[in-house]
Amino acid sequence: MRIIVDAFGGDNAPLEIIKGCAEAADELNVKIILVGSKEKIEKCAGENFISLENMEIKDAPDIMIMTDHPREILKEKSNTSMAVGLKSLAEGEGDAFVSAGSTGAAVIGASFIVKRIKGIKRPAIATVLPSNSGPFMMLDSGANADCTAEYLYQFGLMGSIYMNRIMGVESPRVALANIGTEDTKGDKLRIEAFEKMKEASYNFIGNIEARDIPLGCADVVVADGFTGNVILKMYEGVAGLLMHNIKMIFKKNKLTMLSALMVKGGLKDLKKRMDYSEFGGAPLMGISAPVIKAHGSSNAKAIKNAIRQATDYVEKNVINAIAENIGV
Amino acid sequence: MRIIVDAFGGDNAPLEIIKGCAEAADELNVKIILVGSKEKIEKCAGENFISLENMEIKDAPDIMIMTDHPREILKEKSNTSMAVGLKSLAEGEGDAFVSAGSTGAAVIGASFIVKRIKGIKRPAIATVLPSNSGPFMMLDSGANADCTAEYLYQFGLMGSIYMNRIMGVESPRVALANIGTEDTKGDKLRIEAFEKMKEASYNFIGNIEARDIPLGCADVVVADGFTGNVILKMYEGVAGLLMHNIKMIFKKNKLTMLSALMVKGGLKDLKKRMDYSEFGGAPLMGISAPVIKAHGSSNAKAIKNAIRQATDYVEKNVINAIAENIGV
Repeated sequence: MRIIVDAFGGDNAPLEIIKGCAEAADELNVKIILVGSKEKIEKCAGENFISLENMEIKDAPDIMIMTDHPREILKEKSNTSMAVGLKSLAEGEGDAFVSAGSTGAAVIGASFIVKRIKGIKRPAIATVLPSNSGPFMMLDSGANADCTAEYLYQFGLMGSIYMNRIMGVESPRVALANIGTEDTKGDKLRIEAFEKMKEASYNFIGNIEARDIPLGCADVVVADGFTGNVILKMYEGVAGLLMHNIKMIFKKNKLTMLSALMVKGGLKDLKKRMDYSEFGGAPLMGISAPVIKAHGSSNAKAIKNAIRQATDYVEKNVINAIAENIGV
Repeated sequence: MRIIVDAFGGDNAPLEIIKGCAEAADELNVKIILVGSKEKIEKCAGENFISLENMEIKDAPDIMIMTDHPREILKEKSNTSMAVGLKSLAEGEGDAFVSAGSTGAAVIGASFIVKRIKGIKRPAIATVLPSNSGPFMMLDSGANADCTAEYLYQFGLMGSIYMNRIMGVESPRVALANIGTEDTKGDKLRIEAFEKMKEASYNFIGNIEARDIPLGCADVVVADGFTGNVILKMYEGVAGLLMHNIKMIFKKNKLTMLSALMVKGGLKDLKKRMDYSEFGGAPLMGISAPVIKAHGSSNAKAIKNAIRQATDYVEKNVINAIAENIGV
């Protein structure tokens, strides 16, 4: 299997990306196609004693930066590592593409260069998040701010296939993020989506309130990209703030620092359970070839996990399953 | 000042409500008009040795229950404590109304019985929430699932007046809850609202991402009722879950229980800072007389706080300030 990796995406590029690729090439029986400035990649690998064995380098001189408009990936920035990587995927030079770069550019690039699965109206950023009873998938996490009921219905299908094929959940429970649990709750979009989803072939269990999402009451949480992004960032924000405050409590004096030692293991466990880099990156579901968006702050381990996830996505035939079930 | 209180709203009615009213009558120099079954109120007060001095009872035989549709408050349920209390407010028998009962019924009842301030398109549930740097107000927290840009613009004005007059914040920073900080981020509604809000006379500071909300980067967070409700419930859900998990870590064995003793003070402080019942209830802003919706789980102290907040709302002339600034 050949996985194409954007060497210049994310906060820790290129070093952590190259490291993660080297580990993946070692452990996962994949061939890596690293995309980015050949010169810089070779220099970075050399300086850090990383072997580029089992890796091919595809030269792409340019880099997408924070201030670039995502749309520029199609024109002004068509020689960036992300654009070249996506073109390489579209032309079949690799089986999947992994990038920790700009989410917006990845969504636009994937939609226009790699294109959507036939029948899929919009691709979704599908995030795997921790809950108190195991991981669940939330989609869309921000690709489409404005959605229709049909998009939401399709997100439910794609999430269900992912949780079944990749995470091994039998008959995944799909819920619609809403502001009440009764069937008729919510805004116009939710009321219309509920009607569509209750006719779906997947296991739609109804509405879920935001309060219950972190408890793990559903395997797939369906939201428009605006709401999904708000849920994702509230999760990060509140959890981060509380963990920070608890750390401060323990740092107060020698006694509290001593007490920290006794609960260190438990807190570490909790932090690990809450760490979503464990589950890899966010697949852009609905795209006709596997595109995995790793977190911008990915380190080598997160990149390796995203590459493993990409191989799973290919092996478990997620894209075919979506195409067969979308009913066109 | 006369505050009308719904004696039969909330999970702990009527006992905690009556207790809270007695404390308020004692401490706050207000006259309480308790609304509900006279017989039951007198019986409950008698059995619990609560003095009804400085309180008047307005008889209302019926009670809104969970399974009632909120709209029933206008017809089938027009003899409930909530409906009678709101009518009493509309007729000027009291200066403000406090209820811990159904939020939906309070919004509909207040809108149709007490009516909106002239020029205000929709009332908003305005919640005061804790952040790492003090309380902020979020509105709408769930009254209007579908909103227009104009509603959002007006929510910003009302929140700004509240934070200024009641919480004493000079030139409150008003932000629009969005999925990015750049001016052009978000869905159609957000883009349109941003354009309106940047022309506002209040201190609009632009978009705020959900991740930054708990940090306290704004004094007023403006959202449509759907998004606001999701933010509110994610806040509750994630914070509740983490606090629960941390409790479990401390309960593991004798050593961890011992360590809990050393950080007990710090954790208690944190819990208190995160406890939004401290800030009273949620005013239904935009209604032409003060209506405060206390949390359903309110105890006597929360009711007393909501009554104090109601007197503030009257004394600081919040409603006049809104009417004068709405520009009709």
